[in-house]
Amino acid sequence: MSRLQKLLSRIGLPDPRLGARAQAHLDQLTKPPGSLGRLEELARRVVEITGKDPPSVKRPLIFTLAGDHGVVVEGVSAYPQVVTAQMVENFLRGGAAVNVLARHAGARVLVADLGVATPLPSHPALVVKKVAPGTANLARGPAMTRSQAIQAIESGIQLVDAEARTGCDLIGLGEMGIGNTTAASAITSVLTGVAPEAVTGRGTGIDEATWQRKVAVIRRALAVNQPDPTDGLDVLAKVGGFEIGGLVGVILSAAAARIPVVVDGFIAGAAALIAVTLKPEARPFLLASHCSAEPGHRVILGHLGLKPYLDLELRLGEGTGAALAFTLIQAAVKVYTEMATFKSAGVSTSRGD
Amino acid sequence: MSRLQKLLSRIGLPDPRLGARAQAHLDQLTKPPGSLGRLEELARRVVEITGKDPPSVKRPLIFTLAGDHGVVVEGVSAYPQVVTAQMVENFLRGGAAVNVLARHAGARVLVADLGVATPLPSHPALVVKKVAPGTANLARGPAMTRSQAIQAIESGIQLVDAEARTGCDLIGLGEMGIGNTTAASAITSVLTGVAPEAVTGRGTGIDEATWQRKVAVIRRALAVNQPDPTDGLDVLAKVGGFEIGGLVGVILSAAAARIPVVVDGFIAGAAALIAVTLKPEARPFLLASHCSAEPGHRVILGHLGLKPYLDLELRLGEGTGAALAFTLIQAAVKVYTEMATFKSAGVSTSRGD
Repeated sequence: MSRLQKLLSRIGLPDPRLGARAQAHLDQLTKPPGSLGRLEELARRVVEITGKDPPSVKRPLIFTLAGDHGVVVEGVSAYPQVVTAQMVENFLRGGAAVNVLARHAGARVLVADLGVATPLPSHPALVVKKVAPGTANLARGPAMTRSQAIQAIESGIQLVDAEARTGCDLIGLGEMGIGNTTAASAITSVLTGVAPEAVTGRGTGIDEATWQRKVAVIRRALAVNQPDPTDGLDVLAKVGGFEIGGLVGVILSAAAARIPVVVDGFIAGAAALIAVTLKPEARPFLLASHCSAEPGHRVILGHLGLKPYLDLELRLGEGTGAALAFTLIQAAVKVYTEMATFKSAGVSTSRGD
Repeated sequence: MSRLQKLLSRIGLPDPRLGARAQAHLDQLTKPPGSLGRLEELARRVVEITGKDPPSVKRPLIFTLAGDHGVVVEGVSAYPQVVTAQMVENFLRGGAAVNVLARHAGARVLVADLGVATPLPSHPALVVKKVAPGTANLARGPAMTRSQAIQAIESGIQLVDAEARTGCDLIGLGEMGIGNTTAASAITSVLTGVAPEAVTGRGTGIDEATWQRKVAVIRRALAVNQPDPTDGLDVLAKVGGFEIGGLVGVILSAAAARIPVVVDGFIAGAAALIAVTLKPEARPFLLASHCSAEPGHRVILGHLGLKPYLDLELRLGEGTGAALAFTLIQAAVKVYTEMATFKSAGVSTSRGD
């Protein structure tokens, strides 16, 4: 675990003086102070996180990590497990929602297999970091071993390390894995202390009977595994998923590299909970995108103190919400860098001078 | 008034069957049905409004209309009146927030003078439709005559007519006018029946004493003028503004041409209230963007049954929120037209087949 520990020790809080200086710049632009609200906040946060003033976003990237979940044998999903692999192929062909929305934002999608169960044909764009072909059934025992959990996190770290070297400057979290809302609900319940039924939703669209079964499965998973809420690795190993572990690594590595991380929906939020349990100083590097229709997502955002920018009732994952938020972050950066100042435009200030 | 009446008679409700057919297409795309939430709703609405399936957005345009307000002599604003003209020049140079955000969305900004008080140098890009150099003080009598109100609306209609001929296919409402939140509060109070103090905010950033004075001014305006809430023209004439009247015309003309209209903030919302009072069938052509920090905007959105997509605490106007919403609408159209279907991608559906 020394590699992970070494990374954790490199994560330090952003310097708030950078944010104050950024706000002073924003207040000179031709608009009443603060009138661009949370768009100004976004620009300020990017300056604080990156330490770059003026800020820029040139190479935004969505990490869409895929993995399968042994818990699907309990009948918790509306889709068969093979859909995870089928959707990975769809991502690679560019036909999924995240591809469309990433293109719209001028962003790349990096697709990685952290643990897909169905064999995937090799593809030049597919990054293979497979820990195992799917997790074990978390309702009967741990989803993975502790060393597999570390391996998943370190795989995520490696993904970011490679991309940060080539200038990636904005990161979005995305995922695909049939059954992973069950894992995310279990993680959220453990780490926020909120009851399973309050953090369990309809996932891809299950009926009432399936929802009841899903809640019962999560209760059983927590009873059988007794995950330790103070130990992020224990929670990931016992009730997590490989793609979730990979996202934990992406978050931690991005925080160490001072790259802003845009949380997507419920699954990415569960990864953020684990990352912040492992290293509380990673929290200020996170930006929310939307609030998912999954009830657990609201609980996570509240717990992390993140306020979403979009109100779209998304419940897809993949990184779709993050991609949409990218367009807002780019807008915020352009406001910061392209607007005229009161002085340059010859516009009077509020004092009437 | 025959020209306006003729236009009103051309506005008919969108055909809901188009929306149902659009949803059937969305349900074939590789995502659980409805999982893109309000992004799907946006795509459906664009199809319903335009009657074009597949939808497209090629020439989005923000109408930023400027006008001055005689009520500024009551000391209701934090900025001097000359700022209206100075900001128009800033718009024409491309240095204002709406220019930056429109460029980000690939949209043009059309800047028109509906009634700026300060003389403006001529500029090839400035469209001059000046009704008068500023309204009269609405706290002492009507802001304008009924024929000026009609002229302002007809000017807005002419602006859209010219642009619709060259293919404008998405319209955003924007405005600039020192003092215009006072007019918008008065309009909102009359047309929603909510008390002035509940629909009056801090505008560009006034202090408590100025806010108290602003509420008193609005109360006086309503008492002096007694605007008739069933007569949109009467409300516009007595407590409106020239740029607000222009936006009413933009909305009505866009609805007649079946072009989606994105409402911006509080002032644009007040124009939407008047437009819908004149022609209730114009309502389905309106799309919300954000909910402004101005308290009256929430009242308007509730009254019109519009739900915003962005949660950014903007309070600038100019069309900034509309420009940001353009990027979401474009994303929705791309989802509709660029995503793979379950069949084309070979992805299993929820029935497992």
